[in-house]
Amino acid sequence: MHGYSDTAEQHLKRLRRIEGQIRGLQRMVEEDKYCIDILTQVSAATSALRSFSLQLLEQHLVHCVAEATAKGGPEAQAKVKEATDAIARLVRS
Amino acid sequence: MHGYSDTAEQHLKRLRRIEGQIRGLQRMVEEDKYCIDILTQVSAATSALRSFSLQLLEQHLVHCVAEATAKGGPEAQAKVKEATDAIARLVRS
Amino acid sequence: MHGYSDTAEQHLKRLRRIEGQIRGLQRMVEEDKYCIDILTQVSAATSALRSFSLQLLEQHLVHCVAEATAKGGPEAQAKVKEATDAIARLVRS
Amino acid sequence: MHGYSDTAEQHLKRLRRIEGQIRGLQRMVEEDKYCIDILTQVSAATSALRSFSLQLLEQHLVHCVAEATAKGGPEAQAKVKEATDAIARLVRS
Repeated sequence: MHGYSDTAEQHLKRLRRIEGQIRGLQRMVEEDKYCIDILTQVSAATSALRSFSLQLLEQHLVHCVAEATAKGGPEAQAKVKEATDAIARLVRS
Repeated sequence: MHGYSDTAEQHLKRLRRIEGQIRGLQRMVEEDKYCIDILTQVSAATSALRSFSLQLLEQHLVHCVAEATAKGGPEAQAKVKEATDAIARLVRS
Repeated sequence: MHGYSDTAEQHLKRLRRIEGQIRGLQRMVEEDKYCIDILTQVSAATSALRSFSLQLLEQHLVHCVAEATAKGGPEAQAKVKEATDAIARLVRS
Repeated sequence: MHGYSDTAEQHLKRLRRIEGQIRGLQRMVEEDKYCIDILTQVSAATSALRSFSLQLLEQHLVHCVAEATAKGGPEAQAKVKEATDAIARLVRS
């Protein structure tokens, strides 16, 4: 059980919508749509991925804190380091 | 005909791979995979979307410059403004 | 003479304001201000740098297009490639 | 006392270096340097700000976890929410 399990259905809905946006992009390329309109749609999909990752991250950190409260800090500290490495990858992606 | 038409097939391949990454994310959520591994996969998909948009943008700008050479500047200048607005949206997404 | 020369004074004003934000960050650290408030100020400074770079970029691209109109495309095409490389670095920074 | 107090001197050194980069940008504009070189320098300063904020964030989260261990979760949970809001602002700046 991870921090996000309770809201897995909500995450899946969000990811299916993003999948739809990516298929929409394929249609736009096939129909030779205007470049700038495609780029606008890419921005929308990227934003949606960002929102998904930020929500997942929050749930993960809440979970780390809960674990620290229950079991003490050292293991949770290691997870914070792991989480900030993931944030660094997100920020630079 | 837009700037990217010649490479449409290559763009579609790239977008299908991104669609696969998004479906991979759905599987990871369904299988209750570890949060940090999901975030790493989100970073990979976001990077792939960025690369796609940067390539599209380059083709568009090359096209604008070609148009400016052929028809003169004013219309192409307006397109540069439009393109930098799209870049601003990308940078902030 | 580059594309941005006419607005150099405006750029300098903007950069001096960003320099002020960075000095403000130093004061916040010295006065042991709350972490989250410092991060909010970092976001503001980063946004200001982004705006500066986007304006500079637009002026540069407008200049490229003007050059293409005057002298023909090949040299301007090379500059577009150079500009999109710079955009890629900005997006990932 | 915040999570970053022990390393305040290191943060100040980093911020002074960023201040130097911003002043370097001003000189580049005054000396009418090439646009793309200025943009490369903006990317470097933005990256340095990012690194600073990621380190500060890690220290803050480690502190939250330590607090949760000592005092129990509710207050620390609220701080995690506050931290992820700050991350969202950073990601979008």
